[in-house]
Amino acid sequence: MKNVLLASTSTLHGESYLSYLLPVMKELFAGVTEVIFIPYARPGGISHDAYTEKAAGVFAAAGFTLRGLHTFTQPADAIRNGQAFFTGGGNTFLLVKQLHDLGLMDVLRTEVEKGKPYMGTSAGSNIGGVNMQTTNDMPIVYPPSFQTMGLIPFNLNPHYLDPIPDLPHMGETRETRIREFQVQQDLPVLGLREGSWIRIKDKRITLEGALSARIFEKDKEAYELEVGKEIVL
Amino acid sequence: MKNVLLASTSTLHGESYLSYLLPVMKELFAGVTEVIFIPYARPGGISHDAYTEKAAGVFAAAGFTLRGLHTFTQPADAIRNGQAFFTGGGNTFLLVKQLHDLGLMDVLRTEVEKGKPYMGTSAGSNIGGVNMQTTNDMPIVYPPSFQTMGLIPFNLNPHYLDPIPDLPHMGETRETRIREFQVQQDLPVLGLREGSWIRIKDKRITLEGALSARIFEKDKEAYELEVGKEIVL
Repeated sequence: MKNVLLASTSTLHGESYLSYLLPVMKELFAGVTEVIFIPYARPGGISHDAYTEKAAGVFAAAGFTLRGLHTFTQPADAIRNGQAFFTGGGNTFLLVKQLHDLGLMDVLRTEVEKGKPYMGTSAGSNIGGVNMQTTNDMPIVYPPSFQTMGLIPFNLNPHYLDPIPDLPHMGETRETRIREFQVQQDLPVLGLREGSWIRIKDKRITLEGALSARIFEKDKEAYELEVGKEIVL
Repeated sequence: MKNVLLASTSTLHGESYLSYLLPVMKELFAGVTEVIFIPYARPGGISHDAYTEKAAGVFAAAGFTLRGLHTFTQPADAIRNGQAFFTGGGNTFLLVKQLHDLGLMDVLRTEVEKGKPYMGTSAGSNIGGVNMQTTNDMPIVYPPSFQTMGLIPFNLNPHYLDPIPDLPHMGETRETRIREFQVQQDLPVLGLREGSWIRIKDKRITLEGALSARIFEKDKEAYELEVGKEIVL
């Protein structure tokens, strides 16, 4: 009984914040009046207030009130009483640390598993995975744990990037990094390209959006999953 | 009394492993017969043995014996008795976890601060900084701490990459990530481009190699530091 949207990115190149997600947001949040915004990932170090204001403008235009979780004195109660949730992108370490420090990770998972709509973009999608260990973000803070909500039985790599041909740069490719992770943990990873998202309706998980996803399973060659397909991992 | 070389990368595009560093390695390790290799970062998940073998070939050609730290039953004693050290690149989380789990981080720092030659590439250079919190690597394991040796009073970002013009990708640039770190910690970060390295001789820290470095100080505009200059941060 889940109703979840995990998007690779909030913003497509040359478009405005969340604009490509508006149609699916309206479907996801149908019947909801107020959505609770989790601003902890703070992209570029933006304040919780400024981040909430940015997102609230888009939500208002779509017909939903958005309220920042940081404005509640009892955030766990706010989640328990909330109708629906949106976690914005930014730094996954910061987001996960804050959720664990405040004891909110399990509370949020419990409410989402009851069927309350949840939307994540980028870092907010990472926390839908089993753990945050395939994030691209810098470890700017030290979270007490890397465990996340596990709404899906695999990990995501948002902003998935294919190797750039002819780039003389010697830093590891995204695929190399994901393979290094799988030496440590036998967990499938879905490389989610910008413009695509994962939709969970009850037990059915599908890939939606503009681009196919790249699937990495330990000791198997990586392969493409087409848009519209069910994800069975 | 330090004698340290921290390089951005082990390998330049189109060149063989460590080849561009050979002249400075010979100077750094002058008078040394055996260098201890720390293979814990395991690039691509390679085994400790295979990684040591790869590095040992280059060291042998340069006139040095290389021995993997993983082959000693008492690695802390091996470091205390060792003449010089080389830590190879790979995954910084894996390297730092292993060093902390085995109680080796402080032992290594103590020996390097006595003046024993130390060379690091990539992840092996990250651990020369104050902490590993400006690494580019994925958090594939959970280290007990992000603290590193602090051989320099700032952090490094190896494989520093300037923004790629016209790339429609919306993932954060390296500069954005470093700035997000500095919202959390007021610590200078040196973006070290591939082909350049930091040389510490006693108290003097200089930038060497092919390319200028990019310096990030909190609340200041980023600026370039030219090759040959002393780094005072």
